[in-house]
Amino acid sequence: MRYELYYWPTIQGRGEYVRLALEDVGAEYADVARSGVAGMMKMMQEKRGTPPFAPPFLKAGSLVIGQTANILLYLGSRHGLAPKAESGRLWVHQLQLTIADLVLEIHDTHHPLGPSLYYEDQRAPAKRRTEEFWKERVPKYLGYFERILAHSGGSYLTGRRICYADLSLFQIVQGLRYAFPRRVKAFERRIPRLVALHDRVAERPKIKAYLASERRIAFNEDGIFRHYKVLDL
Amino acid sequence: MRYELYYWPTIQGRGEYVRLALEDVGAEYADVARSGVAGMMKMMQEKRGTPPFAPPFLKAGSLVIGQTANILLYLGSRHGLAPKAESGRLWVHQLQLTIADLVLEIHDTHHPLGPSLYYEDQRAPAKRRTEEFWKERVPKYLGYFERILAHSGGSYLTGRRICYADLSLFQIVQGLRYAFPRRVKAFERRIPRLVALHDRVAERPKIKAYLASERRIAFNEDGIFRHYKVLDL
Repeated sequence: MRYELYYWPTIQGRGEYVRLALEDVGAEYADVARSGVAGMMKMMQEKRGTPPFAPPFLKAGSLVIGQTANILLYLGSRHGLAPKAESGRLWVHQLQLTIADLVLEIHDTHHPLGPSLYYEDQRAPAKRRTEEFWKERVPKYLGYFERILAHSGGSYLTGRRICYADLSLFQIVQGLRYAFPRRVKAFERRIPRLVALHDRVAERPKIKAYLASERRIAFNEDGIFRHYKVLDL
Repeated sequence: MRYELYYWPTIQGRGEYVRLALEDVGAEYADVARSGVAGMMKMMQEKRGTPPFAPPFLKAGSLVIGQTANILLYLGSRHGLAPKAESGRLWVHQLQLTIADLVLEIHDTHHPLGPSLYYEDQRAPAKRRTEEFWKERVPKYLGYFERILAHSGGSYLTGRRICYADLSLFQIVQGLRYAFPRRVKAFERRIPRLVALHDRVAERPKIKAYLASERRIAFNEDGIFRHYKVLDL
């Protein structure tokens, strides 16, 4: 099946977790909104069917699937990026939903007053939220994933086979390195397994080819991971 | 099967979405942490199995399932609170994940600087975030669910049969009425179908019995929906 991915065309954002899964399994897909968002906006206003609240969403045949973790739930079972047994599928989905919570908290570091205001209108609260994020939340979240990796019986979250949540953790490490290079450098000695997981994913042939291609949008200050020097002191 | 629900014992919080589903289907369950959180804390520190990042989580036989939406995904397909076909299951899950996003934004109205600081330490940012929430986000989220209800072909999100996301929307309306009685009163004329859905769920015999029981924890200022007068002006 040829998938259609719908997401904002100029940022990695939440669409990137879906792109990484599609790329890693070598799925055929079109990143539709890269050539214009009009069709995407229209689909969100549909009265019939399953109109998504927000991008990303995936068109898979007659299905329209919204919400990043939901898309990965669907792709994971079709392309071997999740265990076959229900218990394993629920576990990977649980991990992905925890990553989704972390992504939201990363976004809130520069948007503590909400997504409708500009960063420039919330610099002081952003500074305070970022301090709290690195003091309390990063150790808690990354410490959790590090602990899961330590006991998984392999290099990946579920053991020896990669799952879609591993690909998402790669993106978390990449993104934190982009947004907070100084802070993350001091922190990385506490998460050796996560760093090793990142490196292993980066070397997967299809991911490597994707990262070097024009399909990978560069990090920038419109996305979730933003590099503002003042937040990285 | 007798389930074990693990959640903070003094708030409705995210556990409430699970409780409503368990109650509506008449499932046998123990709300374990109501008699102490020591066991719950220990389970989150487990090295083996599938230790959750945070409550709520559900013990179902040998499974330990974390993340609210993931628990509902599991319960929904076992107890008739979700369609049987994959397309329908994905749609209900997509709606639930959008509700989860809304719940997080509701929490952020009183905690814009992050979950580790007290509300009292972030009153001014909370005021600004709440203004933005009611101006931009509430119309967007509730308008979306109102539109889905208008075109579902029934009184519920997927038509004539209730699903777990309907139960969660009941809780959203209840919670907004508790936290923001003035603001929500002015807004309710724009969401007649959501209000009708709320009323219909409240009249379901098992939900009605639950709400009148001691199993239902009262809203309070430690939960997600908090009534601070200054935020409701």
